[in-house]
Parts: sequence; structure tokens; C-alpha cells
Amino acid sequence: MTTFRPADLPWRDAYKLLTGLVTPRPIAWVGTRSADGVANLAPYSFFNVASSEPPTVLFCPQMADGHDDKDSLANAEATGVFTVSVVSRDLAEHMNASAASVAPDVDEFALAGVTAVEGDVVAAPYVGEAKAALECRLFEVVRIGRGAVVFGTVVAFHIDDEALDGTRVLPEVLDSVGRLGGPNYTSTRDIFQMVRP
Amino acid sequence: MTTFRPADLPWRDAYKLLTGLVTPRPIAWVGTRSADGVANLAPYSFFNVASSEPPTVLFCPQMADGHDDKDSLANAEATGVFTVSVVSRDLAEHMNASAASVAPDVDEFALAGVTAVEGDVVAAPYVGEAKAALECRLFEVVRIGRGAVVFGTVVAFHIDDEALDGTRVLPEVLDSVGRLGGPNYTSTRDIFQMVRP
Repeated sequence: MTTFRPADLPWRDAYKLLTGLVTPRPIAWVGTRSADGVANLAPYSFFNVASSEPPTVLFCPQMADGHDDKDSLANAEATGVFTVSVVSRDLAEHMNASAASVAPDVDEFALAGVTAVEGDVVAAPYVGEAKAALECRLFEVVRIGRGAVVFGTVVAFHIDDEALDGTRVLPEVLDSVGRLGGPNYTSTRDIFQMVRP
Repeated sequence: MTTFRPADLPWRDAYKLLTGLVTPRPIAWVGTRSADGVANLAPYSFFNVASSEPPTVLFCPQMADGHDDKDSLANAEATGVFTVSVVSRDLAEHMNASAASVAPDVDEFALAGVTAVEGDVVAAPYVGEAKAALECRLFEVVRIGRGAVVFGTVVAFHIDDEALDGTRVLPEVLDSVGRLGGPNYTSTRDIFQMVRP
């Protein structure tokens, strides 16, 4: 075993360890619109469920030079809403294209080659090609060091009928991808079952 | 597409949708000790990185009858510390055994058939058989609806030498498992690479 103490490590090494160990991470493909109306799309893998009631998700952009270089946080704060689209294996390359750092006036849906579909409930776009998307209202932002924890209340779920059996989501149809460290991703195709005792 | 509005859904259905869609989730196998000294071990898949500097993780127990039925939160609040062990594929069944709801005086390391190794820095145990573990100091707890968001500052990383190349973690050696909805899990064995543009 090797032991690292963060106090002795440059933060980028701690980041490498965290992103290598906290795996596989779900990917929030976050859709927002700027106050000027420009559609923005960017992936965040520090993402999860915060609360099942009311249904609440969180994602954690990391600040570079004091701001989220993907603009999602600024847009969510300006408009009070955001969407999360699910990245299935066939959309992975499109998702990666939307991870580029570009000027805030670039429409990243167009850049990523996907369709911006306006939310039913919130004024933010989601990915039309995605097998599922959540519409969220910004609930709160908690800042912790370099991170911002962005909480959103889910106000609508959109799910492809093929991926649904009642309210059960079929993982083999959703075919989501997860983030590992460095340039690595995993599919969710090697599925196994365990029943909680 | 089927659209669900959470306002019209029983919360258990919203929970099924969230856990089916926010995938694959990393698993924090959380080790704590009660104020009475009993070792506790339980898995939480609402888990991720919150901040890379200072290195901070979060996990989100969901409250049943107003408390975390796995005891981790009460113990972390009583002692100010917890650990997170990584669940590799060969430990998945042990992790699942530790998900049983048992009385607070049951040592869940023994129940799960794994070794409790005391932290170097914090007075909480981690899984000796795990390929990696984090020692954490409780930083803050934010309550949102049924969820509690438990933030921990990482004060030590322990990683099997076989799974490390410098500070790069080798995913094929770590062999972590991810949580999907229902009884479903995924391995991280179907790995692919994409370089951020």
C-alpha cells in the first residue's frame, strides 16, 4: 500500500487520485441558456442524487480562476434552471465534443452535433437524442474550496419508452456511460445482479 | 418519450427513476465507529467528489423515519470522521452483505467477512482487503429533503501499489463496480478512451 497525505501533494495529484478512485462516475450532460439566450451544453461527472424526496440532484463544477470554465453554473444562477441529459454509449463522442472550452457565445449543442429541445417546464434546453433527460430548478449552490455543489430539484423526467417498464428503467437500453480517471470511460454493459440482504 | 412530473408521482417511483437514470454510480463503502466503539460498514452510491482542493468527497444517506438506517451518519457526527473503501469486483458480495439493516451493536466488518484496519490519521476503520481507501474528516452535513449530504475532507489516501503508476490509478487493476437501478450493478471492465478536445 502507498499512502498519500493531501497536505503533501500538489492539488493536481490529489485530483488525479480522486478521479481515479471515485469510479465509475455518472455523467450529467448539463444544458443551460445564458441570460443572452445562448444554449450551453457541458458534461460534469461529479454528479449524483442528493435526495429522493423531493427528487434532487447535484453536480459539482470545479472553479478555475474563480469561475466554472464551462459556464453552466453562471447560466444556472442567471436563469434559475438547468437540464441533465443522460449520455448513452452512442452519444459519448458527442458528449466529449461538448467538453471543449469555448467562448460563452458558442452554441455547444451545435458544436456537439445534437439537437436542443426546449424543456416543457423550465426554459433550458436538453439533448433531443438522449434516451432520458431531467428538467431541474436550481435549489441551492454550496461552495466548498475549489468546488461548487449545485443542487437542482427535478421537476420533469423525460424517458424513451423503449428504456422503460412502468417506472423501472432498463439499464441495457439506457446504455449509460461512466467516467473513470484520465481519458478513461466505462460502458455499463457488463451488468450483474445482487439482491440486498 | 414518456414524461413524469414528480409532483404527480409517489416518491418511491421518483426514487426508482432517479436510481435508474443517474448511472453508473460509484460506491462509497463507508467505515465508521460508534461513540461506543462498534465498527460500522455500509455502502452508499449517492457518492462523488465535491472539491478537488481541498480534496473533498460527499455521500448522501437517505433518511427513513428521520434517520440513516445504516448508522453511518450518526457515527460520523459523533466521532467527526469516516473512511471510504473502494469496492472492487471481487469484494462486491462482501459489500452487499454489509448493506443489511442490522442493530447498531453488530460489527458489520465481521458480518461482511472483511478485515477492519484502523485509520492512520482518523479513528475509524476501513476495509483491509480493499485496493484503496480514503480517510476523511467530517466537514459539514447539509440536509435537503429526505437526503443528508455528508461532506468529508480527505486526509489520507491508501492505494494498493499494483493499482498505481505514480499518482495515476490503473482502472483495470482497481476494478471498481458501479451501482445501477434495482438489483443491478456494473463492472468497469468495458473501458474506452476519449481525449477532451
